[in-house]
Amino acid sequence: MTDRLAFADFTPGRVFELGTVRVDRDEMLAFARRFDPQPFHLDEAVAADSIFGRLAASGWFTAGLWMRAYVDGVLVRADGLGSPGGDEISWPAPVFAGDQLRASMEVRAARRSRSRSELGLVTLRGTLHRADELVFAATFTGMFRASS
Amino acid sequence: MTDRLAFADFTPGRVFELGTVRVDRDEMLAFARRFDPQPFHLDEAVAADSIFGRLAASGWFTAGLWMRAYVDGVLVRADGLGSPGGDEISWPAPVFAGDQLRASMEVRAARRSRSRSELGLVTLRGTLHRADELVFAATFTGMFRASS
Repeated sequence: MTDRLAFADFTPGRVFELGTVRVDRDEMLAFARRFDPQPFHLDEAVAADSIFGRLAASGWFTAGLWMRAYVDGVLVRADGLGSPGGDEISWPAPVFAGDQLRASMEVRAARRSRSRSELGLVTLRGTLHRADELVFAATFTGMFRASS
Repeated sequence: MTDRLAFADFTPGRVFELGTVRVDRDEMLAFARRFDPQPFHLDEAVAADSIFGRLAASGWFTAGLWMRAYVDGVLVRADGLGSPGGDEISWPAPVFAGDQLRASMEVRAARRSRSRSELGLVTLRGTLHRADELVFAATFTGMFRASS
């Protein structure tokens, strides 16, 4: 997995498997305390009575877990230039402490910027699955250096 | 700001000002090390040569800063039930250490769930501005208890 990835390698339909991440309970709680202190992210008793049934991860923590897998699996071997954003962020099912989540990234589209041809724009969809269940998805544009 | 907010209070067009957050350099770097270790988030020299010009915050850190302001300003006094996701996440400009960001939330739409009338679905857009410049936006659905 150390081969470099050029812009031309981001072909529509290509799927990158990014490995499995485990949801650490202490880190999940620390994240929620700082960034998303809603009771069902922090309090066992409240969470048990909530629609989640038990302590659920902040969706932004889940997003961070996916991002790290994407950096380690793809960006570390590409010339990424950041992201202006995207048009999907989805948390279709709650994430719990101890979950094992499988991370993937699929290329949806790729083109060069019209105004800056050395800039590659890759539309990608990142996902996390717990077994066959989708628990996170985000579709956004990744910018990459596109050599001529 | 301690008045409770009922579902009926989320009227389209209503804007909640969520105060100002300061981007702490150490926390910004710690977040990037854990969740988004791209060189332009971590290495001054690389960042200086990047399109950002200097160390830029991970967009997921920026999202977390907005979320905390939203929890403190709105969710702490409402019966929030989480979010299934949304259709915009946007980082139109980089965020830097020391930035002062003004957080807001605007209600775009609100309706009861067709299948569960006690569930209120609020479409909201969260934003962060540095002076007049938009640096973060997310549009998503917030679920709230809607008493009859």
